[in-house]
This record gives sequence, structure tokens and C-alpha cells, in this order.
Amino acid sequence: MAKNDKKLVSEITAMDEDFAQWYTDIVKKAELISYTSVKGCMVIRPYGYAIWENIQRILDGMFKATGHENVNMPMFIPESLLEKEKDHVEGFAPEVAWVTMGGNAKLEERLCVRPTSETLFCDHYKDIIHSYRDLPKLYNQWVSVVRWEKTTRPFLRSREFLWQEGHTIHATAEEAIAETEQMLNVYTKFCEDALAMPVVQGKKTESDKFAGAVSTYAIEALMHDGKALQAGTSHYFGDGFAHAFDIQFADKDNTLKYPHQTSWGVTTRLIGAIIMTHGDDNGLVLPPAVAPIQVVIVPAAMHKEGVLEKANELYEQLKAAGIRVKLDDTENSPGWKFAEYEMKGVPVRVEIGPRDIAADQCMIALRTGGEKVACPLGSLVETVQAKLQEVHDVMYAAALANREKRTYQCQSIDEINKALTENGDGFIEAMWCGEEACEDEVKAQTGAGSRCIPLAQKQLSDKCVCCGKPAKCMVLWGKAY
Amino acid sequence: MAKNDKKLVSEITAMDEDFAQWYTDIVKKAELISYTSVKGCMVIRPYGYAIWENIQRILDGMFKATGHENVNMPMFIPESLLEKEKDHVEGFAPEVAWVTMGGNAKLEERLCVRPTSETLFCDHYKDIIHSYRDLPKLYNQWVSVVRWEKTTRPFLRSREFLWQEGHTIHATAEEAIAETEQMLNVYTKFCEDALAMPVVQGKKTESDKFAGAVSTYAIEALMHDGKALQAGTSHYFGDGFAHAFDIQFADKDNTLKYPHQTSWGVTTRLIGAIIMTHGDDNGLVLPPAVAPIQVVIVPAAMHKEGVLEKANELYEQLKAAGIRVKLDDTENSPGWKFAEYEMKGVPVRVEIGPRDIAADQCMIALRTGGEKVACPLGSLVETVQAKLQEVHDVMYAAALANREKRTYQCQSIDEINKALTENGDGFIEAMWCGEEACEDEVKAQTGAGSRCIPLAQKQLSDKCVCCGKPAKCMVLWGKAY
Repeated sequence: MAKNDKKLVSEITAMDEDFAQWYTDIVKKAELISYTSVKGCMVIRPYGYAIWENIQRILDGMFKATGHENVNMPMFIPESLLEKEKDHVEGFAPEVAWVTMGGNAKLEERLCVRPTSETLFCDHYKDIIHSYRDLPKLYNQWVSVVRWEKTTRPFLRSREFLWQEGHTIHATAEEAIAETEQMLNVYTKFCEDALAMPVVQGKKTESDKFAGAVSTYAIEALMHDGKALQAGTSHYFGDGFAHAFDIQFADKDNTLKYPHQTSWGVTTRLIGAIIMTHGDDNGLVLPPAVAPIQVVIVPAAMHKEGVLEKANELYEQLKAAGIRVKLDDTENSPGWKFAEYEMKGVPVRVEIGPRDIAADQCMIALRTGGEKVACPLGSLVETVQAKLQEVHDVMYAAALANREKRTYQCQSIDEINKALTENGDGFIEAMWCGEEACEDEVKAQTGAGSRCIPLAQKQLSDKCVCCGKPAKCMVLWGKAY
Repeated sequence: MAKNDKKLVSEITAMDEDFAQWYTDIVKKAELISYTSVKGCMVIRPYGYAIWENIQRILDGMFKATGHENVNMPMFIPESLLEKEKDHVEGFAPEVAWVTMGGNAKLEERLCVRPTSETLFCDHYKDIIHSYRDLPKLYNQWVSVVRWEKTTRPFLRSREFLWQEGHTIHATAEEAIAETEQMLNVYTKFCEDALAMPVVQGKKTESDKFAGAVSTYAIEALMHDGKALQAGTSHYFGDGFAHAFDIQFADKDNTLKYPHQTSWGVTTRLIGAIIMTHGDDNGLVLPPAVAPIQVVIVPAAMHKEGVLEKANELYEQLKAAGIRVKLDDTENSPGWKFAEYEMKGVPVRVEIGPRDIAADQCMIALRTGGEKVACPLGSLVETVQAKLQEVHDVMYAAALANREKRTYQCQSIDEINKALTENGDGFIEAMWCGEEACEDEVKAQTGAGSRCIPLAQKQLSDKCVCCGKPAKCMVLWGKAY
């Protein structure tokens, strides 16, 4: 690569030098976002939004395959509606944006811009649910929500963000709990299969539950720098919202009952997770399943006869096979192009020049590294498909290896601090008595909060890592985004 | 159909009795929407949203095929940003919702919830456009917008509605004008091919232009009741916004120039247009291309051996062919089901019972009427595909016939009033001198405003229909939704 071709990537801060700055450089240089004049609100640019479109398409298919239907709720919630469920309003009211004027007139009741839509769904359920025949309702919506955060970072914590919110309502607790678990599994499968990102499934502690939930389940991922990131949540509400909103149905036995509810969501935060799980000093590394460009074709000696025609042929072949492919036939040097598509995280690069054509082959390079390989043109499509799978597998294995290397089992607060100091941030597996005081104490002394109570429990000891009293469960601790 | 099976549809008001009530009945009974406690904000229910998803999918494909990319802008516009373009702020400020509080704190500057996003796109363009190499940008977004309307009706005029807004920026006026025209043609093709709805392409008069536009193009459709509905708009902005936002680029000749912009949009209003173009006294009639259920299979004598199995076989065959099919195997009577799916506008119904099975056939009925026909089971898929096309063609022809029947050419205001009184509401084709005073006068005396100056002009006379002075063009007049 010529020296000036490196300029493009050399403007990215090295990860080890300053991970936060590396992250900010990537979201800007890879043209994922642009800042706006409203703090915490960003423009998601075409390359960033195309990642979200792929996430949407895959997840939406999984939702529909599990019987869910999409709806669209208004963005405004009247204050009186938000206030109906006590825990819920306490959790959200301090961080909502309020609309107080419509045109030039002051509104009689102020409206908040939805921070989440449980109250709107409940208000609707009350209208449409009367009998057991009306249940379950398995709804989802793809919208944006607003939370007036003080500290903001692109994708990770913004005042407006895009998400999907599933909201379901069931005749029985069992059904609702099964739904909560099912959607946690859908998210897990999506993160592993589409994002090449291993996650830990767990239950949130009482202090960390969603406002209004009986129980909150989450998937937790470990970023490259050893910090934890909550990648998705799935809540079981019991019949608390049904009581608050007076939603009842006539059951088969002709008695009135309160239905049970769930909600579950993932957000554009997943794009932040992709960046911090897979990225490197050359830029983004995108999982093939969601990469806007899966394969870039870079011709060498483009002016030579037949090169562009052959490159176009390869392009058409890959496109016809359903692969998202781009042919870069601009005047930039091949070295410049290599650096650009590396920074943009394109999984597979195909190079073709006069010598390749003479040998009836092209060269294939992977974003995840390794030797360039020659590929006979006759088997291009199958080879590229296999290489995309290989990139996925390598990415998943690397992310899993990072998590395993950075997961520490500890028996005391001293051990936690020692592990974090000696090995860097990561997940801590340690036992807990179940008391919030100990949860707070661990956080105060180590900086690592409880991330979740993993569903896959281990019996590391019988004592709480903090107070030494009998332990109830193993908790996964970590510093979080 | 048994008498009690009719009950379902008999609750729909007859069109001729009260068209407005008929419309309201349909949106409620077909479960397209549900009202909420915020006036003018509605829940779009699964059946209604599925229509929108189909509209989105088809249009988004057309946008991408013409080189457009999706982005996502914030929903909040600071007041100072909205104020940058004078005409634009005058047009929109009176009808926006204002956020004045974030959490418990009063905001330093109030933010409006986007009524449209020209100002946000301009603010972004200023950031990313520096050279001719950065042009054009061909962007679109699928979001909701808010306009604090006084009078609201589901889909037709609501305070929050879903739409797409395309925003493009070009080096030259020619390119921008070509884009404006291209998107008008995309909308036209979509309305005709996907919605079976003929439209008139035209230019808005000066008084009816979008706030800030040099020229506004629109497609106008005629509803069943003879009222006009603006189905989509495409605006050419010239370089006015570029001046207001100080967007400049270095052109090939190394001089700084102001780029030229466009915007274009269609909304969930299209669902209202579908209802009012095609619906009848039995309910919705959905164009096959956007119908959530294209084919419903209704088994007869379901308890008889082999019926449900055969119905399932047909279901799998149609599904495998990419047809959106539903098998209704509930305990409701066939007559009840017929009425329900008629009300829901399902284009094709397949009936299968023991006698049909014995004859190796099924019966096919179309939502657009006509005799039921027998279809050999061996040619089910091809027959259904042909029938879907037939339904589309019949719907388009009927809508076109209604428009032609209700389009009147008039030479005087008296003639306009006579035509509207004798034949009912419709489109008036009449000449115009180009003066706003005459436009106002026609509206005041007839109730019909200028809908557009059709691109396909006719020379009906050389005099203005109002003042008798020399005419500049033919205008399409009508009473509008």
C-alpha cells in the first residue's frame, strides 16, 4: 500500500491508545453518522442506515416467523396516561421530552414524546380485548423513541434512537413468560448468527429491572475493550399493567380475568455493539449478514483492455447470486480503495487485473486477515459464499475468545479488583447473596455493576463475594456502556 | 349468505347514504385503525399497517432502483433552524408541535417536532457537501411527521402521519428538475401499477405551492364520491434553501456555486385513497399488489374427511408461489367468512368442499364481482395469478371510468356549477388566465379549487373560465380532501 493511501485510515486513533476516540473516529470516518445541532440527536447516514435496514429485515422476518404482527402507535403520550402505572412513570418521567404547545396554542394537557410505548399499547388493548378469543395479541413496532439523557454517544446513548418494541398480551402468566423467554432466544440467535456476537443470557437483578416489570431478561455482550453492553431486553410484566389500565377479558369459564403482558426491544445500539465487538485499528469489521456491501470488486490496471469488462462480469455473477456487491471503478488507486473498504469493514475483497484474467482467476482477500487466495473464475460464486461464511466464523470465534480471555471467576472483592487491574476490564463471575446492599458495595469498590444473573448458572462457591453470607446465585458483573 | 352472516357488513353505512360515515365505518370495521386519546393520532392496526408495509416495500424498491439511499434524520428541529428559510417557516410554524421541556428542565431553545425535514437535510448537506464530487446526494427517509391540524380524519388528515420524504441535492438546476419529474413519474407508475389508481400529473399554481418551493408537482386522484385527493407531491426548490443555509460547492471550474434541491413525498394518506377509490358497500376492495391477504381459502364442510387436508395443500401451493394466502379454518360459517373477507377487501377467494374435491377442482370468486368459476386443482397457481391480475385490471378500469364519467369540461362558472349540481362532484377541466384572483373566485363561486395545471394540456378555449381574459393554461379544478 502506497504511503499516501494509508492517510485515509491513519486518521483513526489506535484502539489501545484511546478506545473512546477510536470509536468516535470510526462512526465519523466510516460515514455512519453525522452530528446535528441538537445534542444527542444524530443523522444516520446511508452506510449506517443500510446496516440498520439489514438488521430490521432479518429480525422482522424472525418476529413474523414467530407469529408477530407490526403495528404503529402514535409518538405522543398524554401525561395522565403515562402516570397510570406508578413504577413506570417514576422510571421514565424524569427523562422525557414534553410537548406543551401545538401551533401557537398551549396544550390543555402536555404530551410526552414516547420514551417507550407500554402505556399506549395498554390503552389500545383496553379497547380491543374483551374475550379470551381476542388473546394473545403479538404486536411489534419499528419506531424511534426519545429519552432526555445527559451524556450521549452515537448509537450507544442518544436522546432519540431507533428501535423495535414488541408488546404482547396473553391469557395466562405461563404463556407470557414463555413469550419473554422465546424473544430472548430470538435475540440471542440473531446476535450470534447475524452479528457474529456471542451473548450471555440472564435475568436482571431487582434494582436493574425495567420500570413496571416483574422480571427483566437481557442479553449481555462483551466489547473489545472489556466493557459490557446490554444488547437486548425482554420483560415480563405479570398483570400489573392490566390492573393499572383496567384491561380484563372474559375467559372460557365466563369469569373476568386480567391478562399478562410482555415487552422486548433492541435498538440502533446494536450498531455500536458491532463496531466495538469486531472493529480494529483499520476501521470497521462488519458481519457479512448485515454488511451493506458484502463484497467489493477492485480492478487493477483498469485502463487495460478487458479488465473493466471482466470486473463487470464478476459483479453481475455475484449480484445474480443475491450477494450485496459493489464494483469500484473510480479513478482512485487500488491501494486507496483497499484502505477505504477496509475502513468500511467490507468482509470480502475481490481483486482482478490483467494477469489474473490471463490465469482465469481473481484474488480474494478477507477483512479478517490471512493470505490472499487465488480463486478460479469458474467457481467465484461458491468461493465467495464460503468466504463470507468463513469471515463470519472467524469474527464469532475472535469475539468469543476475547470474552473468554476476559471472563474472570472471583471469590472476593479483592480478587475482582486484582483481575480487573491485571487483565483489564471484563466480565466477573462471582456469587451473590441477593441483597441490594452487596450489589451496591461491589459496584462501589470495583466499578463493576451486576450485569445479569446468567441463566446458565455455575456454583463457584456457597458464599456471597461481598458479605460472605450464603449465596443465592452467580452474578455476571462488569463495567457497562 | 345466511341472514345473520350479513350482520357483519350490515353495520357499514351505505356509500350513497353518507360517504363520510361509510369511510369511518370501514377504517374501524376492517380494523385498519383505532383512535387514541390524543386527537388526530391513531393506532395503525396490523391489517392497516400491513398495507403500509407493502406500499413501503414496493416504493422503496423503486427508489433504490433509481439510485436513492435511505437515511434517518432526527425528529427535532431547533426553532432557529426552522426559521432559516423565510417562506418555509411561514408555511409550517403555525402548525407544529413544540417541545419546551426535557425531563424537568426548560429547554434553552424550543424544538419543533418535524412537520417535514428540509431544514434538517440542509443543515446536514452544509456539513457534507464541499465539492462537485459530493453531488448529487439522493436521499430518502421513512418516518412520521407531525402537523397540528384542527380537523382530522384517519389517514386523510392526521396530526401524526407516516410518510417517506425524499430530499436530493444536485449541481445544476437541470438535474434537480429532472429528478423532480422522475419522482413524479415513479409515483404515477406506483399508483397505477400497485394501487390500480389512475392519477393526473400536474403542477400546482403559485398559491398552492409547498412553502419554500420554486415549483410543486403533484398527482391528483379522483375518489369514488367525486372529490379530489392529492396522492403525492414532488418539489423543485431551486437554490433558495442553499442560499438560506449557505450550502456551496466548488465546481469543476473551481468556482463556488449554490446547489439545487428537490423533495418529494407520499404518506399513509394513500391508504385513504385506496379505500375511497375502490371500496364499496360491502367494505374494502384492496389492490392485489398491496393487499395483506391476496387470497383467502374458505373450506366448506370442514368436518368431512379430507377437506382440511386438501385446503392445506392448496394453501402450501399458493404460498410456495409467493402469493400472500390465508386459510381460514376457524369454526365460523362459510357465509360469515365470505362477508368478513369481502369487508376486508381480499381480492380472491378460493372455496373448496367435498364435491369440489370429488371433481378435482375448487371454486374461485373475485372481490370485484362476477360469476364464481371452477378451477381445476392442477392449474390453481396459474389461475390464481391470472385472477389477481384480472382483479387489478377491473379495479383500474372502474376507477378510470369513474374519473372519466366525472370529468367535466366547462367554459364558464355557470357551467361548472351546473355540471357539479347535475352530475355530482368531479374534476372540472377549464381554462385559466393565471391570476390568483380568478382562482379564488372560481373556488368561492363553485367550491372547486385549482387542483393542478395538468402536464397533459388541452386547449379548450382561449379565454379564462372566470374573467374571460386570455387564458394561459388549462387547470384541473375540484373539491379536495
